[in-house]
Amino acid sequence: MQHELKGERRMSQHSQHIRLVRTPVGVPTEADFAMGDSELADPAPGQVLVRVTALSLDPYLRSAMAGRHMSGTIQVGDVVRGEGLVKVLASAHPRMAVGQHWVALCGWRSHALLDDAVVQQARLVSDQIQPQTLALGGLGMPGLTAWAGFHRLAEVQARDTVLVSAATGPVGATFGQLARIAGCRVVGIAGGADKCAWVTGTAGFAACINHRSEDLRVAIQRECPKGVDVYFDNVGGDVLQAAVENLALKARVILCGLMAQYNGAPLPGPSPGWFIKARATVRGLVVYDHWDALPTMVAELSAHQRAGNMHFREDIAQGLASTPAAFERLMRGLNQGKALVVL
Amino acid sequence: MQHELKGERRMSQHSQHIRLVRTPVGVPTEADFAMGDSELADPAPGQVLVRVTALSLDPYLRSAMAGRHMSGTIQVGDVVRGEGLVKVLASAHPRMAVGQHWVALCGWRSHALLDDAVVQQARLVSDQIQPQTLALGGLGMPGLTAWAGFHRLAEVQARDTVLVSAATGPVGATFGQLARIAGCRVVGIAGGADKCAWVTGTAGFAACINHRSEDLRVAIQRECPKGVDVYFDNVGGDVLQAAVENLALKARVILCGLMAQYNGAPLPGPSPGWFIKARATVRGLVVYDHWDALPTMVAELSAHQRAGNMHFREDIAQGLASTPAAFERLMRGLNQGKALVVL
Repeated sequence: MQHELKGERRMSQHSQHIRLVRTPVGVPTEADFAMGDSELADPAPGQVLVRVTALSLDPYLRSAMAGRHMSGTIQVGDVVRGEGLVKVLASAHPRMAVGQHWVALCGWRSHALLDDAVVQQARLVSDQIQPQTLALGGLGMPGLTAWAGFHRLAEVQARDTVLVSAATGPVGATFGQLARIAGCRVVGIAGGADKCAWVTGTAGFAACINHRSEDLRVAIQRECPKGVDVYFDNVGGDVLQAAVENLALKARVILCGLMAQYNGAPLPGPSPGWFIKARATVRGLVVYDHWDALPTMVAELSAHQRAGNMHFREDIAQGLASTPAAFERLMRGLNQGKALVVL
Repeated sequence: MQHELKGERRMSQHSQHIRLVRTPVGVPTEADFAMGDSELADPAPGQVLVRVTALSLDPYLRSAMAGRHMSGTIQVGDVVRGEGLVKVLASAHPRMAVGQHWVALCGWRSHALLDDAVVQQARLVSDQIQPQTLALGGLGMPGLTAWAGFHRLAEVQARDTVLVSAATGPVGATFGQLARIAGCRVVGIAGGADKCAWVTGTAGFAACINHRSEDLRVAIQRECPKGVDVYFDNVGGDVLQAAVENLALKARVILCGLMAQYNGAPLPGPSPGWFIKARATVRGLVVYDHWDALPTMVAELSAHQRAGNMHFREDIAQGLASTPAAFERLMRGLNQGKALVVL
């Protein structure tokens, strides 16, 4: 696969990166990571040189650092894996052209040489996505996760009572807004009064439960007096347990994330008796199964966005060096919306 | 509602019954129950006098004795609730005629006066059901449970690998045989070599794992090398955990029974991560939702039975006095097939 190199020729490109230097215990901290420098050569045939313009911080990375994620393990010594928004500087691959913006598995780097396998999995950023950083959030993988859960798994019906955990995260916020648009009563769960204010004030949920200040079971019963018809779970643990104790008959539960256990050991789930009692249907959701729907999702959600009917919140840190601290904030649940680093 | 009394008139009918005299701790024993006598009057209008010909022993009764079953609590002092096969001796209710055989909530009694509410819920025994005791087992509520799980929830496809726990019980054995007839590879789990011999030799499962002598995870991997496409759970606890660790992609799990916890406290379920990883669909099954299908189930399963393609196993104790001991055997998992007492 010989391709002519297009773009600026240089002897080398200086790049900064962040490695994992020890396996985090509990919540990752800055000391678990270290910055370093390298010089990147011009792209060999099949490679692409990119500048990273934004990094996506995702809770599943914590699981990968513990060797417990299906996407593979991030080993001590590795540059941290992860998706970012990249701009093509020089390409020796037919799929990418100089100046284009893509979402790619670039890792925590300022610049990256993408190999063929990474290029093949990358996604061109649609012009419909404004601002472009939404390609990492509500109009990217998290948005697709929510879209697939809503359209393909949850069998949502108008007037359902829909409960969503991690309701300010890009998955939960998007799922809840889709349900609100479909005519459901949507109740969020989030950690903090400021988060809840956004969930009800901007995202338009009917209510939001602050799990840091309220008894979850009492609050769910108050806000979902007829029971929970659809529960979208990003958390597991106690939040999942409280939700399943309040399911309505024929409830649907979407299992999507495990925030409660990413920093520690796996937690058990609810006793099967709760699902039997509710005649519930419980489905596991993995976004990788739904890439085919990406263009459909972008078209649908961006149209809602332009109509002022769907809102995406971003929590943006500045500069590669701020990445570990921003990741720690995410894993403590202190982020307000999709966690990003803009470089 | 005045109805002429039909059947033998007598001054009274002597009856024996069994009461719960203390709340069982762990596995119920004979000392938790006591026999007593009573005299039953002629049926008042709306009542029916019956002779009980067989009692059904079901694990859910243990849960009801602990106050944890949706059918209601069996209190200390109550005659033990439970279904039986009854013959009408005298009727003052238009729904029942003298000489008919019904399945009714008669309780642990030799004779019973059924009130209108019990009469309304009773089910006439179809002539297709031979022997009649199968109206309490494979052609009754347990058979309907299996039928509904198979036809309405499990989305079974030919060549699926189907794993069934409590495989000699009337629910598991019936579900597994339906799957075998549909062309699946069916693997049972049962406690004991004698049980496993029946599961493979008579019920025709491809294999049976004896959980008392084998490591469940190792055995499931050996017998289900491509993973478990459908798991029918009557047990919960460790068996459920071992099964979900071996699910194939897009597996279906039917949650039906909780044998592992009927004698004790509720057990947690599997971490949601297992269901996410498998993109599983998990459904809670309660037979009460499926009474509409009873005639369809009886016609289908009795036809398989007459064709020699489906087998029902009964574990029959003799005489009302043997009921507590038979119930203890059931709750220890020592029964071989549907647990019954013939009076």
